[in-house]
Parts: sequence; structure tokens; C-alpha cells
Amino acid sequence: MKPTPSFPIAEAKAPEALAPGSTIGIIGGGQLGRMTALAAAELGYDCHIFTPESDSPAARVAKTDTVAAYDDRSALEAFAREVDVVTFEFENIPFESVQLLEDLVPVRPGWDALRVSQDRLVEKEFLNSLGIETAEFRAVGSLEDLARATIEVGRPSILKTRRMGYDGKGQVRIDPDTDLAEAIEVLGGTPGILEGFVPFACEVSVVVARSIAGEVRVFACSENDHRHHILHTSTVPAGIAPELAARAEEFGLRVARGLSLVGLVALELFVTQDGRLIANEIAPRPHNSGHWTMDACAQGQFHQFVRAVAGLPLASPERHSDVVMTNLIGDDMESWPALLAETGAIPHFYGKREARKGRKMGHVNRLMPKKG
Amino acid sequence: MKPTPSFPIAEAKAPEALAPGSTIGIIGGGQLGRMTALAAAELGYDCHIFTPESDSPAARVAKTDTVAAYDDRSALEAFAREVDVVTFEFENIPFESVQLLEDLVPVRPGWDALRVSQDRLVEKEFLNSLGIETAEFRAVGSLEDLARATIEVGRPSILKTRRMGYDGKGQVRIDPDTDLAEAIEVLGGTPGILEGFVPFACEVSVVVARSIAGEVRVFACSENDHRHHILHTSTVPAGIAPELAARAEEFGLRVARGLSLVGLVALELFVTQDGRLIANEIAPRPHNSGHWTMDACAQGQFHQFVRAVAGLPLASPERHSDVVMTNLIGDDMESWPALLAETGAIPHFYGKREARKGRKMGHVNRLMPKKG
Repeated sequence: MKPTPSFPIAEAKAPEALAPGSTIGIIGGGQLGRMTALAAAELGYDCHIFTPESDSPAARVAKTDTVAAYDDRSALEAFAREVDVVTFEFENIPFESVQLLEDLVPVRPGWDALRVSQDRLVEKEFLNSLGIETAEFRAVGSLEDLARATIEVGRPSILKTRRMGYDGKGQVRIDPDTDLAEAIEVLGGTPGILEGFVPFACEVSVVVARSIAGEVRVFACSENDHRHHILHTSTVPAGIAPELAARAEEFGLRVARGLSLVGLVALELFVTQDGRLIANEIAPRPHNSGHWTMDACAQGQFHQFVRAVAGLPLASPERHSDVVMTNLIGDDMESWPALLAETGAIPHFYGKREARKGRKMGHVNRLMPKKG
Repeated sequence: MKPTPSFPIAEAKAPEALAPGSTIGIIGGGQLGRMTALAAAELGYDCHIFTPESDSPAARVAKTDTVAAYDDRSALEAFAREVDVVTFEFENIPFESVQLLEDLVPVRPGWDALRVSQDRLVEKEFLNSLGIETAEFRAVGSLEDLARATIEVGRPSILKTRRMGYDGKGQVRIDPDTDLAEAIEVLGGTPGILEGFVPFACEVSVVVARSIAGEVRVFACSENDHRHHILHTSTVPAGIAPELAARAEEFGLRVARGLSLVGLVALELFVTQDGRLIANEIAPRPHNSGHWTMDACAQGQFHQFVRAVAGLPLASPERHSDVVMTNLIGDDMESWPALLAETGAIPHFYGKREARKGRKMGHVNRLMPKKG
């Protein structure tokens, strides 16, 4: 009655692999850094967190932290000397900091992947170059640019900063009655991009890993619902045609290969009523829409991320269960007693001290038997 | 096509529940403390490790550690003042230390559960009082006791220290030709117990949780193979009749209730050729033979342990997969590149700096689809 396992042993050819006991340096002290550090610990690694925040969620589960600004050169140098590899939980690291680190220690993913995702214009041009459709877009450097772009792209459209925006920050919708001189204020004098408005049926995303040896693995396409520009739920399988989900996954692989990335990349896509996939943005790191993998796969996105960053072979991205991931934003955390009492709910709390409005405080995965 | 989840919300009635952000104090810095701290982090708690070892595996994933002896009263007092609850990764804590802590902070499980499992004689009497069969046993305080006990219990039998033995340490087998005066040296002048030798078909164990509200949950019975007195593999389901496995699970529940324990307890049992279950020992903490739950259940023994200790409702112990857990002992760690390259293998490395002989360095879970 004992199950008879078969253990297919792949060839272990990873000369760059970090041995257990090595130290992974993580730039950023939030929940993504925290969950990366927890996965790294399971694989036997120590972590060193670099963040301007003291008592950060990530630092509290890591061996060491350095509390310093992201452009503090001497702190970055000391950090680089104490770790075996550097990665990051967010992509908006200053170029000069990445450059300094890359001179001293492997940085995975490296500047090339960061560069593309730091700038919405470069990002969209990159996606188009891979044959992946995006919304129509125009660079906007001035009010004159904006006026011309609005005519070419049409209204409604969205004016965004090229850099540093997330969760709906740094953007404004241009409606038929929007005053352009007022709208351009959102850019704060920085370069912008006007993007055509995509009337979509739903939003999906894929998270893809690429290893140092060039192998790629994609987690299943999830369907994402947003509330107030912040991810609310991710559902797997997505409620779209399987061919469309497969196409999204293929796009994800294309992006990972196109960036020659070592690490993870998430690709967000709109699905239109007529079944087209329109890329929204990419993020070269673990992604909120991939948190479902933590419980529905044997090894989720954070384990996969650590494997890639540590130069290891990748794990299987197959899922054993269907799943709905729900974010806990701000006051949602007040429901913690009910979540812990709910049969089958798997809560993940991020250890943040204060439940501010719009702040990601945790998430909960709810598994269901896998259908087909 | 989106799956329709049903979310049965149990009533959240846990006035003693520790809110996320609270601090769990863990006595012991080894792998069990480390994996407890990782599970605690996922539930939003900070951990404070108390251990005599600097740079311990558990401390490297915890917010704080205190490096001090287990009987250092002033260090224990300071520790108790900084945490919201205390638990431990091993049961051989000195009575005086537990007493001191219990005066200052909730200790879960408390002294009653520790007391029973610290002494093999008390433990066996407790098991018998619950109607659970053990090997025949006699207290041994002197060579005369041993001579009499050897006649009553017969040879072969096993002489063990009543306290502080584990993994085959502090014990000797009494064979027909064993010199008793020599054998008794193993006790080092401490009280002993002679246990009848049980010719068993296999060994099994169950891990049970009991919450502060008195609810109990048992993980499936695992079949355990040992090598050189150290656990080698745990296999679930066990290769025994389902009725027998169910009986082992029922025994586990009886033990958890009998101890009025708040936390986890593991019960190890021998299965005889004629289908009897004979209890070997109990351990009031997460157990090596429960490591399979980490990947084969939505929430494994460490999450369950943290839930109990933090005064939360317990999680479902159901497994989604069949599984074989294999320990990595000493030099086994050298196979880390192959393990990381093996499709479907889920490695857990403990971050120990040195792979000494007989030392538990990690384990690997291999999942298989659940049969029936």
C-alpha cells in the first residue's frame, strides 16, 4: 500500500549555484522582500535586507539588515561585500546604485531588465518589439505634446508618468471634458506617456521565471480583479478560453527570454471583448498576482525566484489546486480573527505595524480541488 | 469557468488569540524552532529565540534572539517580559526555568505536558492510564533493580535513562550475554527504566494539535523507517490497514486530550505482526515525522503549532497529496545540487553551518497524487 514514488533525477549542472548557507542580499524591506526571505530560508540561505525603513517586515525574518537610503553609496558598498548575490523586491532602484552593486557582486536580474520596466515608454516599445500588442501610446514632454497626443490617441486616454508610478499613482484619465493644462500637472515636470484607453473584458497576468542556464517556467495565467486601482483578487484558472490563457503564458515566456532575465517577471494583460490580449505592464520581480502560487503549487513564486537568483535549477510551476487569492488592504486586516477561523482559508499576514488606507497588509488563499 | 468557492466562515471566538504583530518566544534555536518561526512569520508574528547557541538556525529567521543558558534566570526573566507567549522546540527544559516563565507569561504547552514527556517512566504510566499499550517496563534505580527487572521483563530488553535521551542516546540493549554491571553504566548514576523489547513489523506516528479552546486535529498516520536510531523516511499513507491507522490517530487524540495540552504532541507507535499498536514515546512539540505535512497539507504542523500556541483556531489537517519525507543526515547534505535539480522534490535545508555525523541538516518531501 506504500506509494511507489519515481524520482526522476535531472542532471545537476549548475556551477554558478549558491550553496546553502550563502547570503542573498535583498533590496527592499516590504512584503515581497519578506516572503522572498522566508522562501530563501527554506532553501537554507541567509538573507540581508537593505532598506531605508527600520524594523521592516523583511528585516524581521532575515539574519541582517542595513537601514540606509537606496542611494547611500558607502552603505551599498558594505552591503555588497557581505552578500553573495543581490536581488530586489521592486524595480525602481536608481541606476547609479545598480551600477555600483554590479561592479561588486552578481545582481539578478540585472540592469537590463530593470531599465526596461522603469520606463513605461521603453517598456511598451520593448513589448511591441516582441510582437506583443499594447495600448496605443505617445511620449508626452510638454502641453503641446499632450494636446497632439490626445488628438492622435483619442479620449478617453490615460496620462501617466514614465517612471515611478504604481497602484494608480502618478496617472490621470483624460476624458472629453478634461482640461489638459490641469491634467499635465500629474507629471510634476517629469516625462510622461499618453496611453489609449483599453475597454477590456477582464485583466489577467502571468509570472514567469528564467534561470541562469536559460530555462524558463511559467505559472498558470490568473484572472485579476482590481478595486480602486489596487489588486483585489487573483483567480486560477482564469475565466477565459484555455487557448487565450495559453497565449498569455506564451507571451510571458517571450518577455522573460526577451529580457534575458535571471529571476521572475510578471506580465499584466488586458483581455478585450473580441479576445485580444493587450499588454499593460511588466514587473521584473515577484508579483502580487502570483501570491496564489504560494499555496496552490508545491513551490510558489518566491521559491522559484530564490532558485533563479541563487543560480539553481527551477522548480515545477504546476499547481495542485485551483485557488482564489484575496488581498487584505488597510482595514481588511480587521477581519483577521474570522480569516483564521475560516475552514480552508490560508492567511498570510505581512507584519506591518499600521493598517493605513490602501496599504497591503496581507492576503488569503482559498484552495479548491483542481478541475481538469 | 471561474471556480465558485464556498467560504464556510466558522465563528471567530478566540478572546485569547494573539493579534498579528505579537511576539512568540521560542526556547531552542534548532531546526524545529526555525520552521516554527517561519510559520509564525506567515501568520504575521514576530519571534524571539532563546538559545545558548549564537548564530543559531532559528535566530537567523527571527526578529530577536537571546543567547543564554536554559537556566539563566535573569536572561529568562528579560525574555519573558519581551514576548507575548512562550513555547519550545524541545521538551527537556529544566523545571525551574518553566516555573519562572509561567509566573510571567503564558507558556504553551505548560509544565504538565513537559513533565510527562521528560520522564520515560511517568510517560509510560500516563499512556497505560489512557488505555494505550506500551512495552512492559520496570523502574531501575540500582544494579539489584536491573537484575530483578531483567528476569521479569526478559531478554532482549532495553535499558534507558528516564530523562534526556533521544535518537538512541542514553540507552543500551540487554541481550542474553550482556553484562548487567557494565550495561548500567549507560545511566551514569541517574534513574533508569528497563523496557521490554518489542518485535515490531513497522513504526508509525501521529501528530496531533489541541487548541486553547480544546479543539483537536490529527494529521494522518505516517509510517517511519529509522537508520542507526535516527528517522530516515516518513511515508503517508502508512503501509498498514486503514483501521489500524485510524486507531493510531484516535490514540493521538486521546494523548492530546489526556495532557490537556495547548500545542502539538507526537505519538510514536510500534505495529506488531499481529496488528497491535504499542506506544513508544510522546513528544509535546513539532516532530520530525510530521515534516511531510509542510508540503502535503495546506497548512502543516508548524502552522498548526503556531495556531495552537497563539490561541487561534486550528487549521484543517487534511492532506492534498501523498508524500515521502526523507531526512538529510550529516553527509547527505552533499547531495544538495541533485535534490534541487530533481523534478518534484521539495527540499528544506536548516541552515546549519557544519554537516556533522548524525546531525539533521534538512529534509526533502516528494509528493504524489493522493490515492483515495
